[in-house]
Amino acid sequence: MAVYTDVADEELEAFLEPYGLGTLLSYKGIAEGVENSNFMLHTDKGIFFLTLYEKRVAANDLPYFLGLMDHLAAKGIACPVPLRDRNGVMLGELAGRPAALISYLEGVSVRRPQPRHCAAVGRALAEFHLAGRDFGMVRKNALSVAGWRPLFEASRARADEVMTGLGGELQNELDLLEREWPSALPQGVIHADAFPDNVFFIGEKFSGIFDFYFACNDALAYDLAICLNAWCFEHDAAFNITKARALLQAYNEVRPLNADELAALPLLARGSAVRFLLTRLYDWLNRQPGALVTPKNPVEYIRRLRFHRGVTSPAGYGLDI
Amino acid sequence: MAVYTDVADEELEAFLEPYGLGTLLSYKGIAEGVENSNFMLHTDKGIFFLTLYEKRVAANDLPYFLGLMDHLAAKGIACPVPLRDRNGVMLGELAGRPAALISYLEGVSVRRPQPRHCAAVGRALAEFHLAGRDFGMVRKNALSVAGWRPLFEASRARADEVMTGLGGELQNELDLLEREWPSALPQGVIHADAFPDNVFFIGEKFSGIFDFYFACNDALAYDLAICLNAWCFEHDAAFNITKARALLQAYNEVRPLNADELAALPLLARGSAVRFLLTRLYDWLNRQPGALVTPKNPVEYIRRLRFHRGVTSPAGYGLDI
Repeated sequence: MAVYTDVADEELEAFLEPYGLGTLLSYKGIAEGVENSNFMLHTDKGIFFLTLYEKRVAANDLPYFLGLMDHLAAKGIACPVPLRDRNGVMLGELAGRPAALISYLEGVSVRRPQPRHCAAVGRALAEFHLAGRDFGMVRKNALSVAGWRPLFEASRARADEVMTGLGGELQNELDLLEREWPSALPQGVIHADAFPDNVFFIGEKFSGIFDFYFACNDALAYDLAICLNAWCFEHDAAFNITKARALLQAYNEVRPLNADELAALPLLARGSAVRFLLTRLYDWLNRQPGALVTPKNPVEYIRRLRFHRGVTSPAGYGLDI
Repeated sequence: MAVYTDVADEELEAFLEPYGLGTLLSYKGIAEGVENSNFMLHTDKGIFFLTLYEKRVAANDLPYFLGLMDHLAAKGIACPVPLRDRNGVMLGELAGRPAALISYLEGVSVRRPQPRHCAAVGRALAEFHLAGRDFGMVRKNALSVAGWRPLFEASRARADEVMTGLGGELQNELDLLEREWPSALPQGVIHADAFPDNVFFIGEKFSGIFDFYFACNDALAYDLAICLNAWCFEHDAAFNITKARALLQAYNEVRPLNADELAALPLLARGSAVRFLLTRLYDWLNRQPGALVTPKNPVEYIRRLRFHRGVTSPAGYGLDI
């Protein structure tokens, strides 16, 4: 949660002027997102979202993220869309930061996803992958297999503080992932962070997907493996095969997985568990005492990783396709 | 800025049900307020504000605060109003905290108030004082003259860390304030914290006053003295007599000040400067390294205090009434 940058009323009104949104009625800093400062604006034209990009988001990547949202929305994906000012520009500057005005996406994140939510996210992810096929820009996934070793090295010496034997277990896992990571799976734009807090529902109905600031080009099935980890384990880290089946079947109906993708799922899921384990481990070991943001405990990803190690075929995820 | 309490979607929907606000479309934690957790809700009936009262607000005081808002709104004061559930109750419970749903007040706080803003707040404060006359509940001002000595004692030993001689200066000032503090001025409900961030404008127009969580019964002119400190000094702590004149004249047109109140203004303004100096001094000396909320520097209140010490009549504030 964060609002890192304070925005003054006069500055904001000057920034808004070229967007033609009418009178500013109110704005509030939003306590969400750990990378950027977010504000909710109300003008006499409606509710809008304002994001100021802080240092952790590379300014060079912003045209990719904003261009992707624009592209996806044009293809009918339910997601926030950057507004263009009267010169057609999506990216401005406010309080010394790159800033964008974005349409307001209604919806509520589900805290305890049910199988029907998993099915909805599976469908949405497949539609996202299809819609991204003709997006013209490319961004490398800095948090894929090549990025894990350096992340591990930054935490290795203290990994066992979190769990005895964790350093060795990760070492072996990385050796295997680097050796066996598939390179010939269908590629495209992936969301790379489609966790329940980045997906909205209104009542029972899927209303949209957002937070594209990890989006990149990578294997499409890897995105699905991320969702397996993000949506199909209970709060006690127990795997829920009913949810996994709902997720994968719904995805497969919209974008059928090929045989290589199906066979690779357990390995991709192990890689995805390692990816979130490593970033959480780093944040956990480097947490500041007294900071308002409590880093998430990495342990639940060790449990996920061990679960996927025991899966030998898609049937382990409830699939019989 | 704060959201201390996390609220789950299902819990929130259950809480909202008895208010009959329709479908929940979205809710966001708001990064403002340091005492409570605040959320902005959007339902198909409109935008609403949800406050969860954290430990620093005494639960016993909530009926006073909510009752006051309800009373003021009924009298036509532009301020947020607590909603009543289907049983007519304003105070509920959510996530283990007392919680209230409150109407959403549109508006923007001005960062650099101009004389016209000061006039508007003067009028609004006088109207607030008149509207509060027949409010039936009473709350003592814990931060008036009797509360200052204990606050000072808590910081005294380290006061000179902020400014050499500050401890002695405050000691002398408190001796004088305790001796000369007026007790026979007209009393009533005061806001006690009507700073620019608790007053909204839309464009040039005053749109409302809010944050009644310091409201209490005390001398009405003391509230005006707080506004002198809050609205009539520049960011470099220089006094702006044009703003003070605008504030006081506008107040006086709605609720004429009597001779005792006029004569007491410089002393009340000294007391008000000491009150904010003492709470800021305490927060400053007890700040946590690395905390997201940076306490405000108390030094600007020493400058205000010294200014008021040199004022010998209301003419020093631009008044010739």
